[in-house]
Amino acid sequence: MAYEHTAFRKVEFSETDMAGLVHFSNYFRYMEIAERDFFQSLGVNLIQSIPHDLVGYPRSRAECKFSAPLRFGDTVKIHLAVKTIKDRAIDYQFRLYKETEGEDEPVAKGHLTTIYTELTENGELQSKPLPPELLKQIEEAPSSVLRPE
Amino acid sequence: MAYEHTAFRKVEFSETDMAGLVHFSNYFRYMEIAERDFFQSLGVNLIQSIPHDLVGYPRSRAECKFSAPLRFGDTVKIHLAVKTIKDRAIDYQFRLYKETEGEDEPVAKGHLTTIYTELTENGELQSKPLPPELLKQIEEAPSSVLRPE
Amino acid sequence: MAYEHTAFRKVEFSETDMAGLVHFSNYFRYMEIAERDFFQSLGVNLIQSIPHDLVGYPRSRAECKFSAPLRFGDTVKIHLAVKTIKDRAIDYQFRLYKETEGEDEPVAKGHLTTIYTELTENGELQSKPLPPELLKQIEEAPSSVLRPE
Amino acid sequence: MAYEHTAFRKVEFSETDMAGLVHFSNYFRYMEIAERDFFQSLGVNLIQSIPHDLVGYPRSRAECKFSAPLRFGDTVKIHLAVKTIKDRAIDYQFRLYKETEGEDEPVAKGHLTTIYTELTENGELQSKPLPPELLKQIEEAPSSVLRPE
Repeated sequence: MAYEHTAFRKVEFSETDMAGLVHFSNYFRYMEIAERDFFQSLGVNLIQSIPHDLVGYPRSRAECKFSAPLRFGDTVKIHLAVKTIKDRAIDYQFRLYKETEGEDEPVAKGHLTTIYTELTENGELQSKPLPPELLKQIEEAPSSVLRPE
Repeated sequence: MAYEHTAFRKVEFSETDMAGLVHFSNYFRYMEIAERDFFQSLGVNLIQSIPHDLVGYPRSRAECKFSAPLRFGDTVKIHLAVKTIKDRAIDYQFRLYKETEGEDEPVAKGHLTTIYTELTENGELQSKPLPPELLKQIEEAPSSVLRPE
Repeated sequence: MAYEHTAFRKVEFSETDMAGLVHFSNYFRYMEIAERDFFQSLGVNLIQSIPHDLVGYPRSRAECKFSAPLRFGDTVKIHLAVKTIKDRAIDYQFRLYKETEGEDEPVAKGHLTTIYTELTENGELQSKPLPPELLKQIEEAPSSVLRPE
Repeated sequence: MAYEHTAFRKVEFSETDMAGLVHFSNYFRYMEIAERDFFQSLGVNLIQSIPHDLVGYPRSRAECKFSAPLRFGDTVKIHLAVKTIKDRAIDYQFRLYKETEGEDEPVAKGHLTTIYTELTENGELQSKPLPPELLKQIEEAPSSVLRPE
């Protein structure tokens, strides 16, 4: 049973803005990279087509608190922890760090709430119970991993 | 004194993802568009160079709750309200709607907290009191505009 | 019969990079905005679902020559001209300008070649003859519009 | 002396569009990743501040020919070759492949021309001779690497 994952990513030039820092919207893309990596490590598809339908994990909530900037050339370390597993949703906690030679520097804390959803043919989103093959593989992280919040 | 602003934006093809919906990270860019528009309507610069320094408004917190999807071809209406003005920070509330022929459909609620910051030559961020020319022009929105939260 | 279109777009903060200029990849997104606008003015869908299939206009070639930078706060004027209509493809020419009080400043010249394509259920792309409802509405621009190349 | 480099990158969800394919503008960002990787392998800065100035490598031309789509989950292999070294510019050739278990599938061919440029304090771009520390390390790729074009 898995409840956490760590991903790494180089900051790219196109992710910076004219202030010389990574644009804040890209922190959410970094979180999503860790989630993609996590699902991939489990062998579970993050999005797939079933006959006539598309199922995936759109967000119902996204949050990020920024404490230090990231710059071109930095490597960002993204730690994902499964905070809560609900009937139709997963709540993740993220911690983002800038890799350094010594201790990694915290740069942001984030949350994503994602709902397992079917995109029906008429274009509507309908939440569904989390798939059993996923539930067999993930569990909520112990509080020692989640704190300090 | 200004405390709210409404901006409009067409959803572009490059903003959608393979689920056929606007990628959630772009909602934060839509919020920023409304802020840029708001500052522009006031004649205030969102980012500028002063001798040896760059000053601007990086985020300290960003949040979005998503209630309905946006798709290619939609027009998104972004309502910004100044929620709180602090010594060195502004807290905005956003409401995003999909424009329709009848009543606009709410699609998301957001918040950005932005800190007035100087980027010093050694690359550090240092918060600064909000500039007087901005404080002369903005005020906190009345609760009638902010609610229902 | 239409053969040209002009669109306008504010440069957004998230489109700049740490050099203080619009990142070059975004010029291609500006071109696509003009195309979306052009199709919309004609009442034609740029992408649509037909039973079991998705049809649209992926690119087979994209090019841009950059002559001057765009910056945050600029308004970019994007002029599209239909250069060549082939059996299954359209070749566009783009001219990008920075709006100024006097004469607009040229900033880039671009080309997109787009192929009318069906995305079949097994995930393959298959080119198709351009749809008659589009061919009824567009024609190649006269050389006076296209030159000077 | 270096004249080529190969980089790898996972396709991310946010890079796809509603056609289910990687948006074409992102191919240019993939090329730039290979360039960043190449410079980093040489220990040369792609962008830097010198007293009062910012120097870097903005594009003067970008081109891509797309032959096959990339999708979420794919790994893209990006091969960079130094095509021409001029006094103030470098011309790169790129080949993009989708990694497969067997032979990698070609998906695109690209070019970037980049000009060594100083961004002066009044905001103007001024080309400069390529820096000696770069010229000591790179050379033009032999035709065997560049062809077949």
